[in-house]
Order: sequence, then structure tokens, then C-alpha cells
Amino acid sequence: MALVPTMGALHKGHLSLVERAKDECDAVVVSVFVNPTQFSPEEDLARYPRDLDGDIATLSPPGVDVLFSPSAVDMYPQRFETFVEPGPVAASLEGACRPGHFRGVATVVLKLFNIVGPDVAYFGQKDCQQTLVVRRLIEDLNLDVKLIVCPIAREPDGLATSSRNAHLSASDRQAASVLHRSLRRAEELFGAGETKAARISDEMRRVLAAEPRAKVDYVAIVEPALLQPIDLVTPGSVALVAARMGAVRLIDNTVLGSAGTA
Amino acid sequence: MALVPTMGALHKGHLSLVERAKDECDAVVVSVFVNPTQFSPEEDLARYPRDLDGDIATLSPPGVDVLFSPSAVDMYPQRFETFVEPGPVAASLEGACRPGHFRGVATVVLKLFNIVGPDVAYFGQKDCQQTLVVRRLIEDLNLDVKLIVCPIAREPDGLATSSRNAHLSASDRQAASVLHRSLRRAEELFGAGETKAARISDEMRRVLAAEPRAKVDYVAIVEPALLQPIDLVTPGSVALVAARMGAVRLIDNTVLGSAGTA
Repeated sequence: MALVPTMGALHKGHLSLVERAKDECDAVVVSVFVNPTQFSPEEDLARYPRDLDGDIATLSPPGVDVLFSPSAVDMYPQRFETFVEPGPVAASLEGACRPGHFRGVATVVLKLFNIVGPDVAYFGQKDCQQTLVVRRLIEDLNLDVKLIVCPIAREPDGLATSSRNAHLSASDRQAASVLHRSLRRAEELFGAGETKAARISDEMRRVLAAEPRAKVDYVAIVEPALLQPIDLVTPGSVALVAARMGAVRLIDNTVLGSAGTA
Repeated sequence: MALVPTMGALHKGHLSLVERAKDECDAVVVSVFVNPTQFSPEEDLARYPRDLDGDIATLSPPGVDVLFSPSAVDMYPQRFETFVEPGPVAASLEGACRPGHFRGVATVVLKLFNIVGPDVAYFGQKDCQQTLVVRRLIEDLNLDVKLIVCPIAREPDGLATSSRNAHLSASDRQAASVLHRSLRRAEELFGAGETKAARISDEMRRVLAAEPRAKVDYVAIVEPALLQPIDLVTPGSVALVAARMGAVRLIDNTVLGSAGTA
């Protein structure tokens, strides 16, 4: 049985996970839960997109077996106090920009696994660091769950699908493709033989700087196991970018040398 | 199926858990693992009693189904980095004396639960705060495991059975019954109508002070849910004591108003 954990406001990225789960498993559970513990007080928990009726309608054609949509108080009753604390894999990048984020992610993922009891869980590559946190969770805490990471779904202009895209102003939506363009540039350079990570990330920053609406949180080129910075890029190295467009924070990434991921 | 998690050097306290598990469950797994993550660097990990051959012999008559004795590197391979972090229930008493102790306990208990997959787990009341940490672990992380807490097994002079008792010098062994005597005094006072926690704990300290070999870490009278200090004792309140006898640290407790627990 498969679990596809989501925070709802489902888009075609989520649906690609659901379709793959349906192909590979006899039963599919989709959870819809906007997990408060992975948002810091300054973040966008209150205005995170919520549309349960739309999500139910969206999931009817694929025909999932169970949509699990618990309340916050179901998941975190008053006496709740036990968290899962990820290690160094959660310290950099998103973990550095969003303190406590991956503690909340690891905790809710373990809770969902324990409630639903899946054999397989489907996550999206867009949340690259999250997939590593979940992999460590599974291995370190001896969970009997297989993790499947699915490719990033993109809009026609390359923007990675995200529930937060709905909050972009028209101008920001147009400008937001710059994240993808910076990753494409990284792929072009690596494809043309450039292996110096600093050269590639400088060029990514140059592409991003040409779009003044994008406020860059980080550009990084890292190895894929612990997302540690590298000097020399090899196939499998990961280029990541995070930027704010107005009040909306977007992330994207690509695995270099893996044709066609960004 | 039952799990009785132990750190080995089995004594009659462990055996009382095993016997109860055998009475109540179709199969019984006993784990023997001296868990390094629940010891701080200054503590007695290296000299904690280990006797796997003795443990195997001890468990043969009760006839457990599986003895699970993983190595430290099996449980904590090099890349291990994900811990379970308990909340306020782990902050006082043993948690205050042993920083990080309950993080290690909660982590290894979850790992053992996930590896073994028990329906029921048996723990001893001697590690009173540990049973509360495990209860919060089970409830907060949605584990499908029933927790059974078994009474403290005692030597003829009242000393709570403990693997660490083997390390007591003859003089310390004789003096060590003072922990139990202080708890008996608390029960006597409460049984005679005393309800002021301060009066009872003062009297416990007086009993302990009469034994100069005992260096008291704490004496506490607390409510049973979160082990918070109380002013007025009611049935179910818990009296706890921790003291060092030479290099050996001992703990004991009793639930006040529950006839015959200490």
C-alpha cells in the first residue's frame, strides 16, 4: 500500500506522484495535512493554500483509495511533546533558512507512516533535501517503508509546480521562471564541460540577478548524499536555488548530468 | 507478540517482565542491548555489566522465543543521525541529572519497536520516568504498541533489583537499602495521614542522611502524569529517590497509597 503525503492544494506535481503510486501499488492513500510544526512563527502557515474540496475533486479521476485529512489537533493534541530531530543532513540550505522546518517534517512523516502503515511512500524531487531527511529517518529509525522520489513537474515555462505558485502576482509569476532558467544554465555549462562548481554557481547567480523581482536565499552546488558543498561537479551533483518573489518563497533544483531533469 | 527491552545482565526484575509477557502473549522477544546513546561520556557505558552467556542461560528456563542482541554498529551505523527528542516529561529528575539520557532511550526504544514489531512492550516501574517518556513516544508518534509497566522487583532487604547492584561493594550493598527505607518512610507517613509533600520529602532526606555512604542526587514527590513537583500528596503521587553509592548510581520510587509497592 502506498502513501503520498501532501499539504493539499494539489497540482500536477502531486498528481504525478499519485499516478505513479497507482501504477506500482494495489492501494493508494493520499494524506492532505498542512503541518504546523514545519512552519516557523514568521512563515506562511496561515495563508498556505488550502482547498480540500478542490483536492477531493482533483483526486476523484485518479481514484485514490483513501484521502486522509486529519485536523491539527488530531495530529498534535495538547499533550504532544515528542519530536523527531534530524541530523546534519537537515542543517544546510532549507534547514539553515527555515530553522526547525525539518524537525517538523521528520516528525509528521513518521506520524503519517505510523498511522497509515504504507509499504511505499512517494515524495517529489522538488523538495530534494526533504527526501534526504526522510531517507535518513527511514534508515536510522528502522522503518519498513520504501521511499520513491519522483521527478519535478514543471509548468510550460519551466517553473516547478508548487502550491505556493498560486500566491504569485502576475508579474512575479512571469519572473519566477528565472529559477528554472538558472538551473538550465548550470546544466548547459556542465554539459559543455565546465566542472568548477564556483564557476557554475556564479553563472547561476548572474542569471538570477538579471531578474530584480527575485531575492535569492541561496544558490548551491552540492554532492547528493549530504548536500555538502563541492568544488568539482560530477554527474549526480545537485544544483539548488531558493528565492523569494514578493512574499512567496520558491525552491527548485536539478541533478546535473541527468538529462532533462530541469 | 511481546517485546521486553533490556540492557542485559538480567536479574529477577527482568525475569518478572518476561514471565508476565509469556503469560499474556503468544510469543516473547527479549532484546539485550547496552544502548550507548543513553549514556553521557562521563557515565558508566564501558563498565556497565555485560553477560550475554549468562543472559542466554537465564532465559532458557522461561523459554523466550527470540533473544535479540544487536551490536552497537548494527543499531548505530556510521551515518546514523536521526534522534527522537522527548519533551518536558524528560526534563526533570533523571533527565536533569543525565542530559541526553532520554533522547537515547526514546530513540533506541523506537528503533527496537520498529525492528521487532511488538504488539505489547513490557517495562519496569523502577525506571518510572522512562515509562512516561515511552508512553509519550507511543502516543505522540502514533505507535501501535501497548505499554505494560510491571512492579519493581526487590531483594529481601528491599533494594530494587538492578544490573548495577552487582558493582556495589559489600559495604555499599548493605547501605543501599536506605533508598528503599526512605520510600517506606514516605509510605508510612502518607498512610498515617501526612499529605504535605515537603514534610514527607524532608523525612525521606533525614532517613537518607543517616547513611553517609549514600550521596543523594534527588528526592522528589511528584504527580504521576508529568512528574511535576506537588505540595499536597494524593493517592497515586510518586516518591522518587536517586543516590550514588561509591561509583554506582541507584534509583528507586514508589507510588504512594498503592499498598505494597515499596
